[in-house]
Amino acid sequence: MKLDKLAGDRFKERPSDCVIDSHALMIRGGYMKNMANGIYSQFPPLRRVTAKIEHIIREEMDAIDGQEVLFPVTMPGSLWEESGRYESVGSELLRFTDRNHSQMILGMTHEEAAVHLVREYGNSYTKYPFMIYQIQTKFRDEARPRAGLIRVREFTMKDAYSFHTSQEDLEKYYAKCYKAYERIFARAGLLDVVVVESDSGMMGGSVSHEYMLLTPVGEDSIVLCADCDFRANMEATPCIVEQEQKLAQAEVELVDTPGKHTIEDVCEYLKLPVEHSCKAVVYQRNADDSYIVLFLRGDLEVNETKLTNYVGCAIHAAVITEECGLHAGSIGPYKLNGDYTVLYDRSLEGIHNLCCGGNVDDKHYVGLDMKRDIGDVEYGDFAKAVEGGICPCCGKKSLRIQRGIEVGNIFQLGTKYTKPMNMEYLDKDGNKHNPIMGCYGIGVGRLAASVCEASHDEYGPVWPITIAPWEVHLCCVRADDAECHDYADKLYETLQNQHVEVIYDDRNVRAGVMFSDADLLGVPVRVVVSPRNRKNGCVEIVTRDKSVSKQVPLDEAVPAIKECIQELYRKYEV
Amino acid sequence: MKLDKLAGDRFKERPSDCVIDSHALMIRGGYMKNMANGIYSQFPPLRRVTAKIEHIIREEMDAIDGQEVLFPVTMPGSLWEESGRYESVGSELLRFTDRNHSQMILGMTHEEAAVHLVREYGNSYTKYPFMIYQIQTKFRDEARPRAGLIRVREFTMKDAYSFHTSQEDLEKYYAKCYKAYERIFARAGLLDVVVVESDSGMMGGSVSHEYMLLTPVGEDSIVLCADCDFRANMEATPCIVEQEQKLAQAEVELVDTPGKHTIEDVCEYLKLPVEHSCKAVVYQRNADDSYIVLFLRGDLEVNETKLTNYVGCAIHAAVITEECGLHAGSIGPYKLNGDYTVLYDRSLEGIHNLCCGGNVDDKHYVGLDMKRDIGDVEYGDFAKAVEGGICPCCGKKSLRIQRGIEVGNIFQLGTKYTKPMNMEYLDKDGNKHNPIMGCYGIGVGRLAASVCEASHDEYGPVWPITIAPWEVHLCCVRADDAECHDYADKLYETLQNQHVEVIYDDRNVRAGVMFSDADLLGVPVRVVVSPRNRKNGCVEIVTRDKSVSKQVPLDEAVPAIKECIQELYRKYEV
Repeated sequence: MKLDKLAGDRFKERPSDCVIDSHALMIRGGYMKNMANGIYSQFPPLRRVTAKIEHIIREEMDAIDGQEVLFPVTMPGSLWEESGRYESVGSELLRFTDRNHSQMILGMTHEEAAVHLVREYGNSYTKYPFMIYQIQTKFRDEARPRAGLIRVREFTMKDAYSFHTSQEDLEKYYAKCYKAYERIFARAGLLDVVVVESDSGMMGGSVSHEYMLLTPVGEDSIVLCADCDFRANMEATPCIVEQEQKLAQAEVELVDTPGKHTIEDVCEYLKLPVEHSCKAVVYQRNADDSYIVLFLRGDLEVNETKLTNYVGCAIHAAVITEECGLHAGSIGPYKLNGDYTVLYDRSLEGIHNLCCGGNVDDKHYVGLDMKRDIGDVEYGDFAKAVEGGICPCCGKKSLRIQRGIEVGNIFQLGTKYTKPMNMEYLDKDGNKHNPIMGCYGIGVGRLAASVCEASHDEYGPVWPITIAPWEVHLCCVRADDAECHDYADKLYETLQNQHVEVIYDDRNVRAGVMFSDADLLGVPVRVVVSPRNRKNGCVEIVTRDKSVSKQVPLDEAVPAIKECIQELYRKYEV
Repeated sequence: MKLDKLAGDRFKERPSDCVIDSHALMIRGGYMKNMANGIYSQFPPLRRVTAKIEHIIREEMDAIDGQEVLFPVTMPGSLWEESGRYESVGSELLRFTDRNHSQMILGMTHEEAAVHLVREYGNSYTKYPFMIYQIQTKFRDEARPRAGLIRVREFTMKDAYSFHTSQEDLEKYYAKCYKAYERIFARAGLLDVVVVESDSGMMGGSVSHEYMLLTPVGEDSIVLCADCDFRANMEATPCIVEQEQKLAQAEVELVDTPGKHTIEDVCEYLKLPVEHSCKAVVYQRNADDSYIVLFLRGDLEVNETKLTNYVGCAIHAAVITEECGLHAGSIGPYKLNGDYTVLYDRSLEGIHNLCCGGNVDDKHYVGLDMKRDIGDVEYGDFAKAVEGGICPCCGKKSLRIQRGIEVGNIFQLGTKYTKPMNMEYLDKDGNKHNPIMGCYGIGVGRLAASVCEASHDEYGPVWPITIAPWEVHLCCVRADDAECHDYADKLYETLQNQHVEVIYDDRNVRAGVMFSDADLLGVPVRVVVSPRNRKNGCVEIVTRDKSVSKQVPLDEAVPAIKECIQELYRKYEV
């Protein structure tokens, strides 16, 4: 392909709305264009990158006996009613009506479709196990799309569904898929991926893992133990904090805290350590707006996923009205009257001499003893793990928190879908069972953006050759020099004939423009033909990652370029 | 792939809701499953067929300098407002609102998206011409999905958009694409395709062509001339009929036609030839329900596309109310009073002694002379061409009407989209112009179904090897015979190692079951290993199209199979 015909513009200025580098570079490099909030069109370079990622994914899915299928993007709401998700999933599930007033949805995931497709096929134990997958467009009506292709509303995803007759068999297959995912990320050039345990969220099921690219710009928090192998995402990490009782026991006393509404302000005003404070965070159930008051230690944050899982329904941050009886900024567990669901985080268990809200404006209690004054209540795990917190695995105070981008996930679903959707098979003895499912997802565009995020410099992406839009970027510097141009033309033709993927820049532009465009396209092998090189009887071969930079005699150019390409491919062999 | 692990069931009974063979066979063969009206999931065999079709399309599009891109399925309504289609397209355009109450649509075609993507890129004449294409899911909310994958609501389509600086350049590229389409259909094994001129419909533009597979089960009517090269679809064919005045001139007279409401009944009752009758067909504009009364010769049918194009807005069959002043069954052009748009088809021009409605219940006029009694009115072309009608090209009475399935279309769009969407480029002299566009579509699933329709027998599809789900179907008859099974296993392994695509059936089932499954999968080369063959030291090679059926010695099996495959591929070389 000739660069002067490549659709898309490249430019220097970083767009002001890009908060992460991959987003900025993919806009600046003519990879994509925003059409609406979280919705992009792909220019040819990005489509070439995603096509190569899709090819790698297909090879690895086929290698673990996956069978490619295709589910629809648009599905009847009634199908999602079978699983219960038509009701249970929030507004990220896009619901619409068709011309016949039928309820429809846009697929954000395809468990229901997978069960629908193989419900009859999978009627006997002899058919199991099997796995079907697709690579297809999905839509998820995100409230806050961000960071280019990292969090969008419309995206291409590979989603796979496996079916089994026993938990054991699922686990065996899950382990295979776990490995296949490692190979996919390695082949796509994403080397810094860690696997963490995760919360299954709306997918349901018990065990699940996320593949995380560690990067400071990631939107997920990952908890890793410095002393053992524990790694989990924030949602799935128990919060265990040491209870250092720094103060002696005391009597309950109501004190004035004029104008102090946050627990930090109150502690500072009363000169108390924040570990001896109890804060209230209030939510409401989406369904009926009933209140949930959660108490936890003042220095901790609520993990809303754990809370949602515990209450078993969707919730939102409360709107505290005059009528509800709660005194915002002064809510405490002692003498709290009213019809609320009250929950206690285990960080409060057994603590004495606590400061907490007085349930009267501008008043707080001090000297509270949870056991003495509140009595025997149930404590749960509702707080976010903290840096330096206790590892739930080895018990050491070694937890570290890092940021990451989720590039893939795998779930053990059990019978969450097959049971309500009445998918059954007959076993050897003629007894009916619901098959056990696993599901396995990778977002193609997000993976492309993640590789760009993990592998770029200030000038552009440094694409691994396995997913680069082209293998070779051929620059003819001084295209107005006839001999030079002629040689470059021939080289272009020869490389193409030998099935090398070449983007050829023979525009009559300054070398600086040519090289900055090449940097933005991030093609791994750059070949420069210039009058100066030619005078020396050479072409220049430079890799985008700067590992190679050499002059090669003209008549050795083609084999040298091919050798350089092979060398780069070897880096990503698994 | 082993057949016993292939997802999907095959069965014998033709489903009662299948009106055409390809639909029935693709359901019976485990190719797809219906999820909702006009919405299907694809099982692995169909996904393999469509993947191969997509590959052929990509090669041919790339060969005419197409650049693959990807547009979103979901688009903002505001983008379609720019072109005017948000309003002008009917309810087949699926409109919905997202969580932020923004108007959105599901893409049924992507002209607006194409212009949006390259609006900035295409700012200078130096960038032209260029063509971008995608292969992506589309949704069209059809009122009446039918015939399996022939008319669905959700489908995968290749859609291409070319941009030019002159009509001449568009025509040059259009001709290239015309040829590329011929190659695509030939390579996919669809040999009986004719290209017809078509009406551009909601796409706009002037010249357009449809690629039609001629088949009695097609839903489109195609008009072909037996004496010249004229071929067009019904919508685009002028209706020219000879005016044989069989009766002498006469005076106008109002006669009783009690209980006769159709023009046939009236003519029969009055003993008049139907060519001397004038019938009325009444429509209403969708926008304001205003009436359009169209008169045409009694033996002709209205071509609603021509009528819609003429009036320039959407219309529907009229509801004739008491208030509207029209007398259903007795509407005629003579002494018709009321506020209607009245149109005359050219089949009536110059006719005398016509019978027509009397504008009074149960009365008709006879003896009407259009020129004498109606005066100088404008006549238009609003009727459907008829079998034996006059060819608009050679003038002979040689028109034939056939049925066809539209498998592709190409359009010269002009500036229909670039002008309202303000896409402009600067020419050499710094003057601004709107680029000229072409667009080119092929439905992937419909093409698969069309090939099946064109190439099947009562037992299943006869897939051309270029798009067959596998190249070889290996049957091990009597898998309980250890030697036989062992040999078949080895043959399977050897063929796979040599990159032959094999589906391997080693189930312990009757040969009849095995062969009927093989017929339904339609794989071109069947290799049968059986105890009887083995005793003769042979395997059997049979092609699905019955052109080859031979015994081959065991040690020559692999090369013979590969030669048979190569031979079949040669049939589709272009």
